[in-house]
Amino acid sequence: MKRLLLAAGTLAGLVVALPAAAQFQKPEAAIKYRQSALTVMGTHFGRLGAMAQGKVPFDAAAAMANAQIVETMSKLPFTAFIDGTSMDQFPNTKAKPEIWSDRAKFDAAATKMQEAAAKLNVAAKSGSLDQIKAAFGPTGQACKACHDDFRAK
Amino acid sequence: MKRLLLAAGTLAGLVVALPAAAQFQKPEAAIKYRQSALTVMGTHFGRLGAMAQGKVPFDAAAAMANAQIVETMSKLPFTAFIDGTSMDQFPNTKAKPEIWSDRAKFDAAATKMQEAAAKLNVAAKSGSLDQIKAAFGPTGQACKACHDDFRAK
Repeated sequence: MKRLLLAAGTLAGLVVALPAAAQFQKPEAAIKYRQSALTVMGTHFGRLGAMAQGKVPFDAAAAMANAQIVETMSKLPFTAFIDGTSMDQFPNTKAKPEIWSDRAKFDAAATKMQEAAAKLNVAAKSGSLDQIKAAFGPTGQACKACHDDFRAK
Repeated sequence: MKRLLLAAGTLAGLVVALPAAAQFQKPEAAIKYRQSALTVMGTHFGRLGAMAQGKVPFDAAAAMANAQIVETMSKLPFTAFIDGTSMDQFPNTKAKPEIWSDRAKFDAAATKMQEAAAKLNVAAKSGSLDQIKAAFGPTGQACKACHDDFRAK
């Protein structure tokens, strides 16, 4: 029970503490950070995809490790979409101004992806490739939906 | 007990599975990935440092969240230092050739940093700023030692 409370405390800490800690000194640092978090997430998501699509042999331990990282990373990028960091302000980001002009929609898309990533992690922990396959699609769709609306080509 | 075994299994999975999953299709992807993981780690380490150094008020929950991310990220970059990705081969990396010519030293430096990051995470979970301060220094020194030897200015 103590472990469980500690785990719950850690999770709550992540959710509560990260937005409050959105302490980017410079807009460039926020852009670099969010791109970095998404790169790490995408790399591990891609490795899960290779297994889900049968391109590499299924390895339950590797799937678990990758899915854990995907879920962890899914929580990070969004506090870094701070004001003044769109593609209109900086050349090295594809972040559309719609992120800020339609923030509620962006936040909802982020939440949807985070929920899908959490389900993917649960699926990976089961050790079942079928469950991973079932959870992989919705996560990929959640990534794509947000990219379609909020990331420039 | 089941939880504990699951947790131990997850950890073993991370350690065992990640090197095996060093599946970078292109050297550029490996460089981008390791830089990204280090950027995320550095960002959260910096936030802990701001608290350890009294530059921002101590927030135990934020410290815990940041330290957890630092430890998680500390495990990721090193599988991406694959052959053929030094600064001699690519202009956008500061990775010295010594990483490959003195790999045992590099690996030992990485391990030292990972152990320090794990201790920092334990310290943060204690909720004690003093413990965080005590663990922060050695972690920063481990980062610096590796940068001094293996990262170009």
